[in-house]
Amino acid sequence: MKAVRLHRYHQDPVIEDVPEPQINGPWDVIVDVGAAGLCRTDLHVIEGQWEPLQKPELPYILGHENSGWVREVGSAVTNVSPGDTVIMHPLTSCGLCPACRIGEDSHCENATFPGLNVDGGMAEQLLTNARAVVKLERGTDPKAVAALADAGLTAYHAVRKAAGMLFPGTHAVVIGAGGLGHIGIQTLRALTAAEITVIDLNEEALDVAKKIGAHHTVQAGQSADHADVTKQILDITSGGAHIVFDFVGEQGMENLSPDLLRPRGSHYVIGYGGAIQRDTIDIISREINVIGNLVGTYNDLVELMDLNAAGQVELRTKEYPLDATIEAMHDLDNGRLAGTRGILVP
Amino acid sequence: MKAVRLHRYHQDPVIEDVPEPQINGPWDVIVDVGAAGLCRTDLHVIEGQWEPLQKPELPYILGHENSGWVREVGSAVTNVSPGDTVIMHPLTSCGLCPACRIGEDSHCENATFPGLNVDGGMAEQLLTNARAVVKLERGTDPKAVAALADAGLTAYHAVRKAAGMLFPGTHAVVIGAGGLGHIGIQTLRALTAAEITVIDLNEEALDVAKKIGAHHTVQAGQSADHADVTKQILDITSGGAHIVFDFVGEQGMENLSPDLLRPRGSHYVIGYGGAIQRDTIDIISREINVIGNLVGTYNDLVELMDLNAAGQVELRTKEYPLDATIEAMHDLDNGRLAGTRGILVP
Amino acid sequence: MKAVRLHRYHQDPVIEDVPEPQINGPWDVIVDVGAAGLCRTDLHVIEGQWEPLQKPELPYILGHENSGWVREVGSAVTNVSPGDTVIMHPLTSCGLCPACRIGEDSHCENATFPGLNVDGGMAEQLLTNARAVVKLERGTDPKAVAALADAGLTAYHAVRKAAGMLFPGTHAVVIGAGGLGHIGIQTLRALTAAEITVIDLNEEALDVAKKIGAHHTVQAGQSADHADVTKQILDITSGGAHIVFDFVGEQGMENLSPDLLRPRGSHYVIGYGGAIQRDTIDIISREINVIGNLVGTYNDLVELMDLNAAGQVELRTKEYPLDATIEAMHDLDNGRLAGTRGILVP
Amino acid sequence: MKAVRLHRYHQDPVIEDVPEPQINGPWDVIVDVGAAGLCRTDLHVIEGQWEPLQKPELPYILGHENSGWVREVGSAVTNVSPGDTVIMHPLTSCGLCPACRIGEDSHCENATFPGLNVDGGMAEQLLTNARAVVKLERGTDPKAVAALADAGLTAYHAVRKAAGMLFPGTHAVVIGAGGLGHIGIQTLRALTAAEITVIDLNEEALDVAKKIGAHHTVQAGQSADHADVTKQILDITSGGAHIVFDFVGEQGMENLSPDLLRPRGSHYVIGYGGAIQRDTIDIISREINVIGNLVGTYNDLVELMDLNAAGQVELRTKEYPLDATIEAMHDLDNGRLAGTRGILVP
Repeated sequence: MKAVRLHRYHQDPVIEDVPEPQINGPWDVIVDVGAAGLCRTDLHVIEGQWEPLQKPELPYILGHENSGWVREVGSAVTNVSPGDTVIMHPLTSCGLCPACRIGEDSHCENATFPGLNVDGGMAEQLLTNARAVVKLERGTDPKAVAALADAGLTAYHAVRKAAGMLFPGTHAVVIGAGGLGHIGIQTLRALTAAEITVIDLNEEALDVAKKIGAHHTVQAGQSADHADVTKQILDITSGGAHIVFDFVGEQGMENLSPDLLRPRGSHYVIGYGGAIQRDTIDIISREINVIGNLVGTYNDLVELMDLNAAGQVELRTKEYPLDATIEAMHDLDNGRLAGTRGILVP
Repeated sequence: MKAVRLHRYHQDPVIEDVPEPQINGPWDVIVDVGAAGLCRTDLHVIEGQWEPLQKPELPYILGHENSGWVREVGSAVTNVSPGDTVIMHPLTSCGLCPACRIGEDSHCENATFPGLNVDGGMAEQLLTNARAVVKLERGTDPKAVAALADAGLTAYHAVRKAAGMLFPGTHAVVIGAGGLGHIGIQTLRALTAAEITVIDLNEEALDVAKKIGAHHTVQAGQSADHADVTKQILDITSGGAHIVFDFVGEQGMENLSPDLLRPRGSHYVIGYGGAIQRDTIDIISREINVIGNLVGTYNDLVELMDLNAAGQVELRTKEYPLDATIEAMHDLDNGRLAGTRGILVP
Repeated sequence: MKAVRLHRYHQDPVIEDVPEPQINGPWDVIVDVGAAGLCRTDLHVIEGQWEPLQKPELPYILGHENSGWVREVGSAVTNVSPGDTVIMHPLTSCGLCPACRIGEDSHCENATFPGLNVDGGMAEQLLTNARAVVKLERGTDPKAVAALADAGLTAYHAVRKAAGMLFPGTHAVVIGAGGLGHIGIQTLRALTAAEITVIDLNEEALDVAKKIGAHHTVQAGQSADHADVTKQILDITSGGAHIVFDFVGEQGMENLSPDLLRPRGSHYVIGYGGAIQRDTIDIISREINVIGNLVGTYNDLVELMDLNAAGQVELRTKEYPLDATIEAMHDLDNGRLAGTRGILVP
Repeated sequence: MKAVRLHRYHQDPVIEDVPEPQINGPWDVIVDVGAAGLCRTDLHVIEGQWEPLQKPELPYILGHENSGWVREVGSAVTNVSPGDTVIMHPLTSCGLCPACRIGEDSHCENATFPGLNVDGGMAEQLLTNARAVVKLERGTDPKAVAALADAGLTAYHAVRKAAGMLFPGTHAVVIGAGGLGHIGIQTLRALTAAEITVIDLNEEALDVAKKIGAHHTVQAGQSADHADVTKQILDITSGGAHIVFDFVGEQGMENLSPDLLRPRGSHYVIGYGGAIQRDTIDIISREINVIGNLVGTYNDLVELMDLNAAGQVELRTKEYPLDATIEAMHDLDNGRLAGTRGILVP
């Protein structure tokens, strides 16, 4: 089958013929890939940033956002059958470790992460397992949902964790109106009655944010001095946000975020790259929190698919045939996909 | 001032001139009434049903759903000033008892309940206290919000308690599409992503339910045999509701409700009049719950006013001058106000 | 191997030689039984009470409270190895259905229940699965823990659900000081700072309750008039319990329980047999709840084993060789095991 | 009356005669001080550290940990009467602001903080208000409880917030075994079944920790390299703590704390003085949290008094007559009160 394989870090991956995956264990599931999302993480993988954490054996197939149709299942698989339309949770969890037993399967101790540490789904077929597949309505188009498998899931997970605190009269501030931010805003509208204010450098991104549900937008300047942004947010929110969703996590946003909180507020860290620095007296005197967020659980993905089926969460995408993957990667790298997810179609 | 006073049970109240209320304590607040909601509870009061529980001293002024403008405040009042537009929480809570200290002020041990056990707000002025008044935007029209003070608050409170369990993919069933049911449906839409199914005897009420956000409706027959309703609900909800909001609580609905639940589901009792009867083996084998609901807290009312200001919760009303209160009561009693709240304007 | 098999309802089971179980699926686990708890449910099974719900094919092996040592595992089992000491959750859950995916595996849609609907553990060997086995410290004595697998788990589950509401100053009332009640009291002491009051007919049972942690005891009379018990409880609890744990669920206790609650209190139904009957006006005017409770999750069992290993939860037991199972059943049936769990040792 | 007044920063306060406080408002309460706790914060006040935050008008009376007997009450006070034994919450909250209305009164927008920004309780009498006083059993000795009013409350609040996550099998790590740490450990024992490990520089403090309930202790060295402490903790906790309670918050402990967490763990910041510095990738990849903690609510204090009355939380104290306050302050400053709270008795 055709696949996009990484042979060496810092070099373009190669589109080549490789053997098809085989069912080895009773929980294995092989999927005919209908669509593979292209993600900035793929670029970081190529740059070698994930090597120390995930240590994949090169060459291997990239791709961790996939949807398609079940092709073949292992002897013990009962939840899907060949022909079913599915989307894949990024982790193949075990169902036996403590995290799996309480539904926190994104912290499974025994999972593989296809596309990060084993063969992924930028290919005609993908090997995953029974605990990773979410069955979808028969007619669902994999191209329309693939990018929700990881990017969408991450945004949904953070908002879902916070939703119980976002009742009428509360203020949610979203930093970063890119792909994740868009999912975040739509999820906030669907799950909460919070008033939503979005911060971004880019005016166009803020226009889209308004269209999909933001109540207010604030354009941040390039300057490191965010005094004006802080002033605007404290004004709009009458004293600070209840929750700040920081989809950037770097470039100063990670330290601006706590400044935007009211007493008892929480800074949800989703993006990464920077470092938080904060005096403990500020943390205790305002009793504020910093909350980490990582991907989402299998159940989060089920819920997100329900939202999507109800038309409440959608992504803007641009399709490329799998053969054009390198072109798509260059488009992403050069900013030609701003606000749009690249979708590879085998 | 003019007021609607109950002199004897089972007789129409009398509209007459009475002395204006006076500030007696430091937390007292006197309000110029802008609107007083007319509620089925008022009819029950006249019928003497509340006498054993509330023991008011006759004659006294009816009316427990009020909005208006602050006229005068006691020496210690700091949260409102004369001229402020306000809506009144139905209880004048103390702020000192255990319930008040944890924000559960609707269970205050020392509250009065104007209109039920002391003079209420079907009058030109109402005596309440600082802990009962919610300050509204200056331009708010009391006639548009008064009925939210009790009927709306009760529906909001029940949905708000359940909201944390109503994530995408869950099913909420609403029994009773009258005034409270309408608020319940609108609050479900605003606070949750649950799929909403509404049950009522009345086809017209179900049409309104659909217009304000219900995804499905089921018309119940007059017959005591609800097998067909149950079958429809189990089908629509793929095995039962996560939460049933029972706004009726009598006429068999209180015992139909648990039949409509899936395992781990909860029956929220809001209406009353009937009696629950259920084998303990059914309660444990499905691990289902019965949850009582009473009015709402002060904070619930604040949140509901925020929802209303955002245009997410609205009531259909019919206005009457205070002089026409007896006519309005007869209209309500004779079913001429179905789906509409009567609003008395002094 | 030797096993206790039920051939016909209403007749003593037969101790006889049967074929050993075989590994059929990848998640199967065969355990050398070290101890099997004898439970009143076993008597109810023999009486045919569970036939309509569980529909086992006769003859089959009884026994649903087991601990022992792993003998053989299926091809996909990674969490235990032959020789490991284990206790078995009563359900062999699937790990794939919605309930399993959020950690609520006691509501698994695909589980078997050994001893209830398939061969159980009153035998030398038991067939279970990887998701049912909890690995214990090597030296753990199966005889000391077997009865915690179901009876203990049920009591633990109910208290664990309520623990978040039982802070200092709150009152927990336990109805029924038998085996489950004892685990309930010990768990309350370990997990909460609530003041504990225990109600039972039997004075000796109340003495044991005091020894293991009850702060107060109230002896109920045989009479259906519980006015005196209610008065004592309202007095001890200064107005009613925050939580009533009803381990009886019949004989009037199910309708006494709500009378013992303070406003906003909850009646946890654990025992069964009777029927709840309550006016909806009482449920809403005090805003009280009725909470169903069923067995416990796998994670509950893991936690209970941790409590047991720390010496905080213990059961009184009487051992019988497996050959004496019928004698043990007669002892249980005739009240000769009051406050003590019979343990069968193959 | 006699009082300890601060006239100038960086100078010993003066013990002198001042006018008695007067009832000015309807919710005022004047208390005959039975005991005033001496706290390190008093030394920081004298050093001027709180001047920019609290801006008290000099001279003023120190003392923010008080217990005594009600002397006189304002016209609207209904919860206490002259003669009642009371302990004072450090804040005189308003009961009207949003924080007060949901029971989060420690974030009251209108409170005074006696001893920090207005006259405190190192005096024969203290002016406080009805919402600050917790009524105690008649025989309670103010000298035994005064230090729980602030130091104890702060430790209790943090543990109480975390208690819902500390079930059997979880690990709590306490950093700092001084006065607050002692209350923290005792509260953990009373409210949770967590396994408790305590870290401190001081061997003697760790011995006390063990006596009052710690399961394990780890002695930290003076060196900034905490690799060995981290290794020991990860070993004891089998992979990291579920919750770290950081009672130090400076001297490197604030950055050691996150290293001691397992995935999904939380660092509760209670002490202060240092600064948190952490890469966002570490926060998201382990999905860890930093949780601020500030004093406690009124209801926390009520619960803590219940725990104290039940003998579950106690402090070691050393008494000084009010005339010896300066000597007591010097003892505290020079380390002669390690592990013991100084109590001033008017």
